[in-house]
Parts: sequence; C-alpha cells; structure tokens
Amino acid sequence: MLIASPQTMRFEAALPMRSGAALRDYMLRYETHGQLNAERSNAVLVCHALNADHHVAGVYEGQAKSLGWWDNMIGPGKPVDTDRFFVIGVNNLGSCFGSTGPMHTNPDTGRIYGADFPVVTVEDWVNAQARLLDALGIESLAAVMGGSLGAMQALSWALQYPERVRNAVVIASAPNLTAENIAFNEVARRAIVTDPDFHGGHFYQHGTVPKRGLRIARMIGHITYLSDDVMNEKFGRQLRDAVLSKASQGTGVAPDDAAPYKFSTQDVEFQIESYLRHQGDKFAEYFDANTYLLITRALDYFDPAAAFDGNLSRALARARANFLMVSFTTDWRFAPKRSREIVKALLDNRRKVSYAEIDAPHGHDAFLLDDARYLAAVRAYFKNIEVSA
Amino acid sequence: MLIASPQTMRFEAALPMRSGAALRDYMLRYETHGQLNAERSNAVLVCHALNADHHVAGVYEGQAKSLGWWDNMIGPGKPVDTDRFFVIGVNNLGSCFGSTGPMHTNPDTGRIYGADFPVVTVEDWVNAQARLLDALGIESLAAVMGGSLGAMQALSWALQYPERVRNAVVIASAPNLTAENIAFNEVARRAIVTDPDFHGGHFYQHGTVPKRGLRIARMIGHITYLSDDVMNEKFGRQLRDAVLSKASQGTGVAPDDAAPYKFSTQDVEFQIESYLRHQGDKFAEYFDANTYLLITRALDYFDPAAAFDGNLSRALARARANFLMVSFTTDWRFAPKRSREIVKALLDNRRKVSYAEIDAPHGHDAFLLDDARYLAAVRAYFKNIEVSA
Repeated sequence: MLIASPQTMRFEAALPMRSGAALRDYMLRYETHGQLNAERSNAVLVCHALNADHHVAGVYEGQAKSLGWWDNMIGPGKPVDTDRFFVIGVNNLGSCFGSTGPMHTNPDTGRIYGADFPVVTVEDWVNAQARLLDALGIESLAAVMGGSLGAMQALSWALQYPERVRNAVVIASAPNLTAENIAFNEVARRAIVTDPDFHGGHFYQHGTVPKRGLRIARMIGHITYLSDDVMNEKFGRQLRDAVLSKASQGTGVAPDDAAPYKFSTQDVEFQIESYLRHQGDKFAEYFDANTYLLITRALDYFDPAAAFDGNLSRALARARANFLMVSFTTDWRFAPKRSREIVKALLDNRRKVSYAEIDAPHGHDAFLLDDARYLAAVRAYFKNIEVSA
Repeated sequence: MLIASPQTMRFEAALPMRSGAALRDYMLRYETHGQLNAERSNAVLVCHALNADHHVAGVYEGQAKSLGWWDNMIGPGKPVDTDRFFVIGVNNLGSCFGSTGPMHTNPDTGRIYGADFPVVTVEDWVNAQARLLDALGIESLAAVMGGSLGAMQALSWALQYPERVRNAVVIASAPNLTAENIAFNEVARRAIVTDPDFHGGHFYQHGTVPKRGLRIARMIGHITYLSDDVMNEKFGRQLRDAVLSKASQGTGVAPDDAAPYKFSTQDVEFQIESYLRHQGDKFAEYFDANTYLLITRALDYFDPAAAFDGNLSRALARARANFLMVSFTTDWRFAPKRSREIVKALLDNRRKVSYAEIDAPHGHDAFLLDDARYLAAVRAYFKNIEVSA
C-alpha cells in the first residue's frame, strides 16, 4: 500500500484570476507518488472534482481507512502505474481540504475570506497548478487527467498550456454545463445561501455552519451522480430497515393496505430517503459552504467554446495533446453525447483521440468505481505513453 | 368563455383513511361545467396534480386572468366537450385551495391542523371524491381523467370503484414512483421541514411561512417537470438580461474572457437561475408547506401493485373501465416506459386500451400544454364515449 505524505507549497506572487481579482500569498496542498525520472518526463497531474482533493492514492501513515479517492486507478501496477509515472495530486484553490480557501485569512484584511474569497474558475486552477509544476521543475506532463470537473481541468490544460501536455485523459466530462446542470447547481447554492446560518458567507465569525443548506445541496448532488437504474436496483421502493424486519416477521397485511407505511411526511419511510439523509448529514460535517458555492460556480462558468461563438472545434484548435476520452452510458449528468462533442471537435482538428463509451450502470459516479473495461481502457492508454526519449 | 363558480360541499360523517386516521366534518371545494343529463350518464371527473385544484376551466366572474388549469382541454367544443359532458373538478383533501387542509381547524382540538393533518393517500382522495359524487347523485362516471398525480387518481378510481367508471384517461402517469422520483420529493420535503420557519409544521401560530424551503422545493420540482432539451432551448447558457443587453451593445470582449460574467456565486448569472428563482418566489407566496409535504407523500405511497407482490397485472385485474393512456417522449419524471407498464398490465387483463406516446419536447409539463396531437387524441377518445343509452 502506498503511503501518502501531503506537502504544502507557498506562493507569494499574486495569481491573476479570470474575474480580475488576484490571490496573493496562497498555499497549495499536494501529494506525489512514484519517482520523477531524470528526464522529468514521467509526471502525471491528477485534477479533482467537487468532493475530492490532492489525496489521490494510498493511505496516510497509520490511518488504514484514509484511502485516496482514486486508489483503484493510481498505484504500483495499477492503470496509472506509479512504478512508471510520477503522479501529482493537487488540491485546488478555494477548496476546504488544505489549499488556500474561504476559511483562511485574507492577507489584505487580516480577516477570514468567507464569501469574499475570489471566484475561481477552471482556468485559474490550471494556472495555479502550472505554477506548482514550475516550482517542482516539471516543464512537460506525460499526462493530465481527471473525471467530471477534474476532466474539465484536464481539457483546459490542453488549451491553456498546449506545449506542456502530451496526453489529456478526460473522463465523464462535458464541454460546458447544460441549463439543467446549472439549474441543479443553482438550487443547491440557494439552499446554502438562504440557510440563516450562512450569514452571507461569513458564518465562521458567527460560530455557525449552514448545515441545513449543505445537506440539501448534497442530497441534490447525489441524485444527479447516480443513475435512475442503479437507484432502483440499490433502493427501489424498499422501506426502511425497521419496517422491513417487521414485515419479514410475517405481520399480516391486508391486500388493500399491504405496504406497512408509517404514514408520516417527516419520518423516513423509504431506504432511499435514509441513504440521502445520511449522505447529507456526513457531508455537512466536513464540507465548507463557501467552497461548495465556488466549485459549483467554476462548473457553471467553464465553457471554452464561448470565446469562439460556441464553436468547440475552433476552441480546441490550440490543443496539441493526444486524448483519451471516457464516458459512461448511464451518466445523465454528463451524458456520453457531451463527451462525443469533445471527441468530434478534437477530430475536426486532427488530434489523436481514443474514446471509450463504457456501458456501466452507475451513472456519473462510475468514473470513481471499479469497472473492469473502464480501468482496462485507462491502463492500455497509459501503457502506450512513452516516458523517456 | 366558461364562467366558473366554485361550490363547497360539507361532509359530517368521518372519512376513514388508509393511515387508520379519520377525517370528520370536512369540506370539498368543487366546480362543474356543462349539464348533467337526465340519465346522469355524462359526468367526467377531473383529478388534479400537485399544484392545481378544482378550477379546471373557464374564468371566475369578472376575473379575466383566472383561467382554469386545463382550459385548453375542457370547454364547449374542446377535447372534453362541455356541450356533451358534465365536468366536475374537485379540490383534494389536504390541499390549500379550498377543500379542508392543514390550515383549517381540527374540530377535535379546536386548533389548526398544521402538521397534524392526517396523511392522505391517492386512495383516500378517491374515496372522498366518490362521496362527493354520491351527494351529487352521480352513480357512474362517463370518464375519470387526470395527468401526473391526477392520473394516479384516475387509475385508482378504476380499481377502487370499477363499476362506477366507464373510461379512465390516464396521462403522463406511472404505476408508482421510482427511487429517483421519491428522492426528489424527499429533498424538497427536507428543504421545507428543516426551514427554521417551519416550526415542526405549526408555523401558522408562529406567524411565519417556511418560504426558503418552499422556494427550494419548487425549484427542484421545476427541474423535473421540464426536459433537458426544452431547458436548453428556452434558456441554454444565456446570461441574465442585463449582461445580454450590455454584450449586444458591442462591449469588446477578449477571447480569453468572452463571457461577461459577474463572477459571483450568489447573484444571478444565467437566465435559468432567474427563471427558477422567480418560480420559487411565486410558489412560496401562495402554496402551503404542509400541503406540499402531504401531496408529495401521496405520490410516494401510491403503488397499487404492492398488495400483489409487485404484480401490476394482478393489481389491475379489478379494473372494468376502458382506458386512454398518454405519455410524452421527453417526460423523464414519468417516462413513457412507466405508462407502458400500465398498458401491458391492462392488456394482460384484456382491457380495452388506447395508448398515445406523444413526441413532445416539453417533458412532464407537456400534459398541460397545447400539443395538437395530444389534444386530438383526447378529443377522438371522448368523441367515442357514449353518454346515453
């Protein structure tokens, strides 16, 4: 098992951001696995999505349960083989998992940023990551990779730093959000912002946490991460445990009243409710509300074709990397057709693209799960990446 | 234009409910259009869905904008022709639009029901409607009809009172909710219940309204009523009006910053956000929070096959009516495949079923809209309904 050792890099020079703001004196938390080779040609940057961080693989010393979020993908002998590649996981600015974020102190005011943390974009994250690579002495990436929002960063790397990216691995992604995607983000944000404990984003100084809003946000998110099918398979219309065990004891139920409901609008009746409440409760314990707002907004804003009248082919003309694109059939959040838009635009530019559309039941979450064909596709792609001259 | 005159019928005898509770001394608000014929054989009962009521057609005297919610369907010369049929719209128990609901006084305690209003089911509503028909002297319905939750009532009528229903018109329906359907309802309910202004459902006596929760609930609902396609067509990634007009004035935008974003997580950036917030604000002004909980729960509970080990064909064996079923291709809330389950189960029982799967872009909302093929299918079906011997 890999042992992960998080490190912190401090940056004093201001990072100009897309909004016009600049962030100075900030820190990036990151971890690395494997060895950078002498040619410095085997680095793989892993970008994270909403609820993740720099901790991509292995465990922290002495914490057996602290498994990295992409440990099935990254490690010795794994699809992204750390015996060959030097893997870098980096936590994004605005996060609540180590890099500078809304809960840190603004050096300009001496006060906690809160809602004043500058609005970050995918492009800003990529620029910050590029500075980290500069500091690590890595000019060129063997690959940049990510799923979902992480995939948007990988795609943006190929556009912002075309000469520094040899391969981009873009999984469960989209060239931008649809109106429905934005709508779900907006409802989640409104739930947070209108929670009285949010205090306009300055809840830290009130000693509160907008947990009600965070719970709702997470519940909405979870619905969109799973497929209808997998929800029906895992939960269906099953009632909560207590009722199930009562029912299995053979409590007689008349045909007209077969379902042993509690007849309550506020108690849990169905397993799916219990699952969602549990996910919401957990999330509200550790996730920062301002971070949630920032990250969902970064998703909303991402739209590389916007500067080219919506023409994605023209937008991707800058890219020089080879691409592996992966999508999942039951992902209704970032459906395969959205990945195919990117594939088509890359092919329009005569880029080399491998595209795997994986028939997986798990919806958007599939990019984190153990699907043999998916992992095999990534493995095969990385096997063909040359790391030395 | 039809003039609608709402009427109220009072029921003193207790209505036994599926939960075991009983509601006594309650009122039903209803309206009728057309004339009941001498044989009392031309009555059509119209059941309503979540955000609707007894006011199905026409306007209230002197209120030009008070158009009934199904006025495109019901009226003289319309698909449900009030020159032939006697149409009854009835507001359901637990509603906030006239019939007895959570904001009324519990005769047993002298206090407002609030969260103590008994949990109602589709079956209870049907029983209450049957009592109304008894009082109106209507033994047999030419048809019972509804869309969405209203369609579940129509289906339930055919099962609870098979001898009283000659035709059931079941539009944009499902034999029960999927886990995903329940999940969306549950998130909406949690948003309401965890709003500090909800006060456990007894907010009336606190002089508050849980508007934050109602807004979130309505926003979630709206996302599920519309199709992804129609949202993209209507809103896409369009920015709010102010920005659009600024952009159209030719403000120069550099390619790397083409989208004139405000870079805010709390302000409206996209039109879809503005639309959803507006819908949420409107809804929170007039809809009752306890009613929302009750109605979504009635949806969750509906599952006629549950008493038959999930076998829908056996569940529908009781039905004697002929059926018109309609579904809409882009309805992802109650997808066509859910209607087809009902069609199949009816055919298994050798029922007469007409089924129209309408290729409409508008998602679940299509059942309320002017789709020519949809309205023509209903018109043709009603034309063939005999109303006298």
